[in-house]
Amino acid sequence: MRLVTFDEGRVGRIEGDEVVELAAGSTREFFERGGQVGETGETLPLASVRLRAPIQPKKFFHTAGNFAVHHEELQKVNWSHPVHKGIVFFQNVDAIIGPEDDIVYPEGLTKELDYELELAVVIGKSGRWFGPEEAGDYIAGFTVFNDITARDIQRREMQSGVFSFSKGIDTFCPIGPWIVTADEIADPHDLGMELRVNGQVRQSGNTSDLVLKLQHLIAFHSPQGYSAGDIITTGTISGVAAVQPDPFAFYLKPGDVVEAEIEGVGLLRNTVVPWKAAHDTEPYAGSLYSD
Amino acid sequence: MRLVTFDEGRVGRIEGDEVVELAAGSTREFFERGGQVGETGETLPLASVRLRAPIQPKKFFHTAGNFAVHHEELQKVNWSHPVHKGIVFFQNVDAIIGPEDDIVYPEGLTKELDYELELAVVIGKSGRWFGPEEAGDYIAGFTVFNDITARDIQRREMQSGVFSFSKGIDTFCPIGPWIVTADEIADPHDLGMELRVNGQVRQSGNTSDLVLKLQHLIAFHSPQGYSAGDIITTGTISGVAAVQPDPFAFYLKPGDVVEAEIEGVGLLRNTVVPWKAAHDTEPYAGSLYSD
Repeated sequence: MRLVTFDEGRVGRIEGDEVVELAAGSTREFFERGGQVGETGETLPLASVRLRAPIQPKKFFHTAGNFAVHHEELQKVNWSHPVHKGIVFFQNVDAIIGPEDDIVYPEGLTKELDYELELAVVIGKSGRWFGPEEAGDYIAGFTVFNDITARDIQRREMQSGVFSFSKGIDTFCPIGPWIVTADEIADPHDLGMELRVNGQVRQSGNTSDLVLKLQHLIAFHSPQGYSAGDIITTGTISGVAAVQPDPFAFYLKPGDVVEAEIEGVGLLRNTVVPWKAAHDTEPYAGSLYSD
Repeated sequence: MRLVTFDEGRVGRIEGDEVVELAAGSTREFFERGGQVGETGETLPLASVRLRAPIQPKKFFHTAGNFAVHHEELQKVNWSHPVHKGIVFFQNVDAIIGPEDDIVYPEGLTKELDYELELAVVIGKSGRWFGPEEAGDYIAGFTVFNDITARDIQRREMQSGVFSFSKGIDTFCPIGPWIVTADEIADPHDLGMELRVNGQVRQSGNTSDLVLKLQHLIAFHSPQGYSAGDIITTGTISGVAAVQPDPFAFYLKPGDVVEAEIEGVGLLRNTVVPWKAAHDTEPYAGSLYSD
């Protein structure tokens, strides 16, 4: 099933070129009820609805360092820390946007806006303190995540042992375009991944290169507890702008169209727009990082 | 007003030795409605109710490095990073416990359980991209936060530039005992702070030593956006166990009673219990940090 959130937060599943509305207040509620959700009887043309972020999770586990190729490219450019597998922090859930929303470039805060394609797993039920052998039962579905990052801010943050603000700025968390339920993915460890900017391929890989398999990753973080509908991401592949010989030729600019695609899961397309397109003010520049 | 959550999630305000129930589904809803909430007509003796965590926020901004004294004590013991003022990450909202709940010691994961007393600010309304001159309008109230931390896990995490898991384990986020609304605090930058373990003073300080005043801290993080009811913490003072000459004489042990107190805000008391008191299993030991 491809599960969507649309218009003012309505829930549905895609069937051909239509959306069949489901009787749930949110996709998070869909998972809280174990998917035992009926239909409202209403069906709409897919082309007539506005797709929103497919879920608003209670928690968004942002993991990193799970693809050796990305680890190695970071080492090559003397990134300041070794990236241990399975490291985690929580993503800002108020920065989430959907497949038809824009990434707003905060020109007052950053000059180094980067992309990172990631597979995001949707957790289907609440639970904690479990091992890899049980973790498969928690995998309810998948969506695409584009981890937008202000690298200049991230470098400064990492001096203090965090990187959160740089990835949590307003609109920096596109997910979508829908949730594909786990039954439709034969093998989540064999999915092609590709990210393009203005049609040019920037990242290309496969989930077969994940160092930690999903079951291990999910079990490892279970001491923090899961709520139904939580998201856990799995790290990015090689090809981010920051590691290029000339990163400034690769960083995102206003007007860029970013396509993040995972085989069998979907294509998430967002446009980068300038601050002025979204705000009536001069770009916000209230940053501690400059003092 | 001292605003409480009690029993199965009921909302009330304390009046003398009674709880006057309020007609809100949660304290978060109380703030979403701008505090425009009536009473249900029911009044209960305070002694007869079970106090819960005073709020379940959408986001919990966990800031650090905002007291120079704590910064200096970390430097003295060669903590691995400089702590820049205003650094932030998101706390695990599923680790929150209340004033009558126990901190469960996960013996399978850590041998270095530490405490950190912090003032937590409750944000009263949604907003983003604002400056210090507007930030005061967002301060709706205060509560006490005891930032329970597994230092051995934190050291390993910080090698990769994060510290989240070590502070986000189940039950590691006691807050309470209630929210004191901002109108009752004459000057939030002049409040005595004290943390005691089994009656012995471990941390002692005053919010007058905050490097960044609350308005600056709140404005600085506004690019990430606030939802009504969000919490933002302000960092801890000196005296944590990790910096003692013999830290193992100071780390928390099962049976310890921790009292975290802030003048005019309240006293948050929690007991540390062994894993076996809360679980029917052997202590969970599924940690990547050992492989």
